[in-house]
Amino acid sequence: MTNETDLVLERTLDAPVDLVWEAYTNAEHMKQWFAPKPFELTEMDLDLQPGGIFRIRMTGPDGFDTGHGVPGCVLEVVEQKKLVWTSALGPGYRPNETGEGCESFPFTAVITFADAGSGRTAYKAVALHKDLADKATHEQMGFHDGWGTVAGQLEQYAKSLGIGAA
Amino acid sequence: MTNETDLVLERTLDAPVDLVWEAYTNAEHMKQWFAPKPFELTEMDLDLQPGGIFRIRMTGPDGFDTGHGVPGCVLEVVEQKKLVWTSALGPGYRPNETGEGCESFPFTAVITFADAGSGRTAYKAVALHKDLADKATHEQMGFHDGWGTVAGQLEQYAKSLGIGAA
Repeated sequence: MTNETDLVLERTLDAPVDLVWEAYTNAEHMKQWFAPKPFELTEMDLDLQPGGIFRIRMTGPDGFDTGHGVPGCVLEVVEQKKLVWTSALGPGYRPNETGEGCESFPFTAVITFADAGSGRTAYKAVALHKDLADKATHEQMGFHDGWGTVAGQLEQYAKSLGIGAA
Repeated sequence: MTNETDLVLERTLDAPVDLVWEAYTNAEHMKQWFAPKPFELTEMDLDLQPGGIFRIRMTGPDGFDTGHGVPGCVLEVVEQKKLVWTSALGPGYRPNETGEGCESFPFTAVITFADAGSGRTAYKAVALHKDLADKATHEQMGFHDGWGTVAGQLEQYAKSLGIGAA
């Protein structure tokens, strides 16, 4: 149910869906790939259930630092298929105050995964906004570059999870 | 996980939990009791699953009419135990534009039900707000009177559902 206020990134990742899911649902793993380099994810709280916390802290060049951030909320978890969280709500579904930067407008992330055969994963990330202005803000912040870079990092990281197991 | 920005209404209803749940989860039933009389619920869309629509239209004395309203979103459905929806998101979890009146600020409703013995139901409605200002606005709109009246109507309506079945 995407519409004109959404931003969409689709990729086929060269890594199997179980490892992509593992990389995407564990805070310690996510610290390794969820921030587009040279940015770093220095903190992450993730409680993988509806109503659970989703909070990140990102730091980067020139003293960039999101601070402790406004915690978002996990909405839906479907094993190896779908993960939804939003910044419009905090843990326990409480409506959120807005923060700064990426937290200055509410958005919902709908991430879907599917087995694409030959050990690959169809990966789709959709960011839902309330209006075109918020979409434009998110786009100007570098959504496509940022989420695109991150998709590549996710692919590499998920692959690396398979090497130890092989 | 309630806090100082919440509004809470608790009642023991003289109706069994299965009927209270039935009354609370069916749009046609809700039209009969969800608006505090003399207000009326003239329209209701309810898709009882996470991400589903929750939309009401209320009319009342002196031409009061909420219009078609900004659709909210169902977040959690636990049979006969818990129902959560929010106005901060619309169907499919899209962040919402704000509307008028009750829709001028986002809130999340967490409704819980429990068997209280002897055919009664422990009913708790919690409205979560982002800050004290929104809580105060909601309170001044008559949260306690309105939701209190509605709890009584729910009790009577749920009871009446049992009469046909008895």
